[in-house]
Amino acid sequence: MAKNPLSANFTVGFLGAGQLARMSGLQAFRYGIQVGVFSDRDENEPVQFMTPHSSTGSYDSVEDLTNFAKTCDVLTLENEFIDSSILKKAQEQSGTNIFPSPDSFAKIENKLIEKRTFEDAGISVTPYKLVKKVADLKGFGEKYGWPYVLKSSKGGYDGYGNETVTNLEEAKKAYNDLGGHDDRDIIAEAFVDFTHELAVQVARNETGHVVYPCCETVQENHICVGVKSPAPVSQSIQEEAQAIAVKATETIDGKGIFAYEFFLTKDGDLLLNESAPRPHNSGHYTIEGCVTSQFENHVRAVVGLPLGSTKLRTPAVAMINLLGTDERKAQVDNALNALHAGDGHLHVYGKLDSRLGRKMAHYTLLGETIDETYSRASKLTNGIHI
Amino acid sequence: MAKNPLSANFTVGFLGAGQLARMSGLQAFRYGIQVGVFSDRDENEPVQFMTPHSSTGSYDSVEDLTNFAKTCDVLTLENEFIDSSILKKAQEQSGTNIFPSPDSFAKIENKLIEKRTFEDAGISVTPYKLVKKVADLKGFGEKYGWPYVLKSSKGGYDGYGNETVTNLEEAKKAYNDLGGHDDRDIIAEAFVDFTHELAVQVARNETGHVVYPCCETVQENHICVGVKSPAPVSQSIQEEAQAIAVKATETIDGKGIFAYEFFLTKDGDLLLNESAPRPHNSGHYTIEGCVTSQFENHVRAVVGLPLGSTKLRTPAVAMINLLGTDERKAQVDNALNALHAGDGHLHVYGKLDSRLGRKMAHYTLLGETIDETYSRASKLTNGIHI
Repeated sequence: MAKNPLSANFTVGFLGAGQLARMSGLQAFRYGIQVGVFSDRDENEPVQFMTPHSSTGSYDSVEDLTNFAKTCDVLTLENEFIDSSILKKAQEQSGTNIFPSPDSFAKIENKLIEKRTFEDAGISVTPYKLVKKVADLKGFGEKYGWPYVLKSSKGGYDGYGNETVTNLEEAKKAYNDLGGHDDRDIIAEAFVDFTHELAVQVARNETGHVVYPCCETVQENHICVGVKSPAPVSQSIQEEAQAIAVKATETIDGKGIFAYEFFLTKDGDLLLNESAPRPHNSGHYTIEGCVTSQFENHVRAVVGLPLGSTKLRTPAVAMINLLGTDERKAQVDNALNALHAGDGHLHVYGKLDSRLGRKMAHYTLLGETIDETYSRASKLTNGIHI
Repeated sequence: MAKNPLSANFTVGFLGAGQLARMSGLQAFRYGIQVGVFSDRDENEPVQFMTPHSSTGSYDSVEDLTNFAKTCDVLTLENEFIDSSILKKAQEQSGTNIFPSPDSFAKIENKLIEKRTFEDAGISVTPYKLVKKVADLKGFGEKYGWPYVLKSSKGGYDGYGNETVTNLEEAKKAYNDLGGHDDRDIIAEAFVDFTHELAVQVARNETGHVVYPCCETVQENHICVGVKSPAPVSQSIQEEAQAIAVKATETIDGKGIFAYEFFLTKDGDLLLNESAPRPHNSGHYTIEGCVTSQFENHVRAVVGLPLGSTKLRTPAVAMINLLGTDERKAQVDNALNALHAGDGHLHVYGKLDSRLGRKMAHYTLLGETIDETYSRASKLTNGIHI
């Protein structure tokens, strides 16, 4: 029989020490579960301030990961930086389970494999092609039109590892810049004419699954600046996105929390764009906005507890990302309006240094109608310097 | 100008490492604020698992406290075990502020001083008398009737340090048992014929104050087994209790979070029974039950941030204390019903060992009407073995 996760010294180990692990770790503590953290960086990261159980090592080292795994009862991911084959070996050698499992992760660990996995399951994805030679760059543009997007298959996030290209010359340069000639898989992706970018989180384990409301991610320059939940689209589109998200999670037999990002095209079609086997920025609003947050259900899912209700607490919830406005020692200034607001909630990640555009904090506002709530949240956070 | 509490490495130090500091510490982390902990015990306590910044020493040692204070930006209390004179010296020698301030704490640090402070402010307290000689034991019984309660003036909690006495012989024995002949102040307190025990929390700092709903604490054998919020008493009684709680906080110029417990007599009078300069068991329900929890407002108050809304999230909120049912390594069994319930929230404190009656965890349920919600919470937690 598996060890009771609600027993003394049961420990969840996080592979990654950033704000996602930090917010999950706070939910582990709430259940009396201890938090271990493994990071590949020496500098102090958000989670390392909240546990004496901290290790550093290489994400490429089975030995480092195995040694850490042996000090925990279960491991979980906060990023996609470790190869599934390494995770699998660390799991075997330590005897400590990793969730999402290395087998699940293997099905989505890079953008090419991910698209094939979901296509094979009958889920519509953004039109794409693996670029094998320069001629492919030309052919893709001719077939799907310019501009289109080139993506490094592994490791991209928040616009890094992506390039929008408007002609062949740009495509050739971007292919080089992204490492295409260094044996790195590059895929070309059609530029989708969308009306909304949507996201849905799903938590799943052996006790069942729960699905969060369909929200809209508001993007500027490929970076998510905010979230509206529920998304201002029809009920049927919301439900369709939720159904696809559940199907995708079942396709990879996922145990943990998963996030799915969609394009809603001008024709009303949903295309699955990206997935993440971990808590996601699009779900930060669930901390106060839902009965059970994505972080709490992340912990519940990986330790094997039943999953909690994903119901919205109010008809509308808005989240604003607070990105670094300066290069300096981290400090939040001018947050008084945000702190004074009745049902507004500020979260600061505890990073020591601000950098321009770095995710430093977020702000959630609960309200009655989504566009008004989002607009109010934007105003309340306008002027915050961080 | 005071240091911005929302800046890198700002640290709140907790004097005490139990569940109250733990739940406050989780709210500090949520603001990116670091957590330090000082404990007088070597064994691992709930907070020591959630920070690498941990010290042990004596609560009677100005030097130990000063050394810890120097590593923090502000200190706060989780219990009443340290003398205000010691706190004051540690504050002076370290230059680190302590909130509630030693001066505020000095006005309530033992039951005798506390009663005098609030009586002087015109607040009705339970009839009492300092017992100076055995004849006082007889006289008090003759004046207020038997039974009555004898209390050690300092250090009592959860029924420890209290004895109900029904005649003079019992009174003499209790007086000795409580340390009356060892130069310890013992007070006699009239047995109040009450219909409800009520509680109110107040948070206050230089930005203003907020007051929580008036709740009922459900007691069995002098131990709080649960809480109903709002209390099932008239609106005017609720408001009167809230007004007294605010007045009491202003009386001691309190900065921090404070809890007040009242008797509602059969005649409809409110008598202030006890106060606490810290988060209180009666306010655990506020974590999910209110827009801003007592723990979050505790942190906001002591670091100088504006205070958050105390509004109830639903019309009724019930909390059940989960007390140790056995002497064993801590483990929560049979919690599935509680975890499955739609708006039910389990909190486990991370203590390593269960002891009979020890506060190990609690459960909060949000609902529509208070008696039905409390009754449902009781049923959902019935059978939990811990």
